[in-house]
Amino acid sequence: MDSIMLIGLVAGALTTSSSIPQVVRIIKTKSAKDVSGLFFIMMGAGMSLWLIYGIIRSDTAIILWNAVSLMFCMAILGLKKLYG
Amino acid sequence: MDSIMLIGLVAGALTTSSSIPQVVRIIKTKSAKDVSGLFFIMMGAGMSLWLIYGIIRSDTAIILWNAVSLMFCMAILGLKKLYG
Repeated sequence: MDSIMLIGLVAGALTTSSSIPQVVRIIKTKSAKDVSGLFFIMMGAGMSLWLIYGIIRSDTAIILWNAVSLMFCMAILGLKKLYG
Repeated sequence: MDSIMLIGLVAGALTTSSSIPQVVRIIKTKSAKDVSGLFFIMMGAGMSLWLIYGIIRSDTAIILWNAVSLMFCMAILGLKKLYG
């Protein structure tokens, strides 16, 4: 694995795992009032396109992290629906 | 501009502009209690690495959108500090 790939993988790991504290916070406080649903809808749409972009460019880092981020994004939207 | 570049630019435009409704929401409600600060700290760190990744790979879409997203990220962290 070359260093550029490593930077991409670490970058993606950070942006992807950043969703975890937001998921935990909503579950703990059972409140998502301040969280913008539109933020995550647009983020999810963008991640889907980044996924297509990564597939076309066979860029592993972009494919992997946008696929995982998309799942977190949908989880947060589900929690937003649940807790409002 | 080829179609792949276009996909990357639209993907980035979506993920970047997704921060706008979150910024507007915090300013309107003057509340960021439900928004996880750690989410945006980790997101900002990841975007900084994506920026380095894009520069090394001379990938315009990645460079442009992560630079802009980084600014939104810092704006939201500033608002989080202001409104708690």
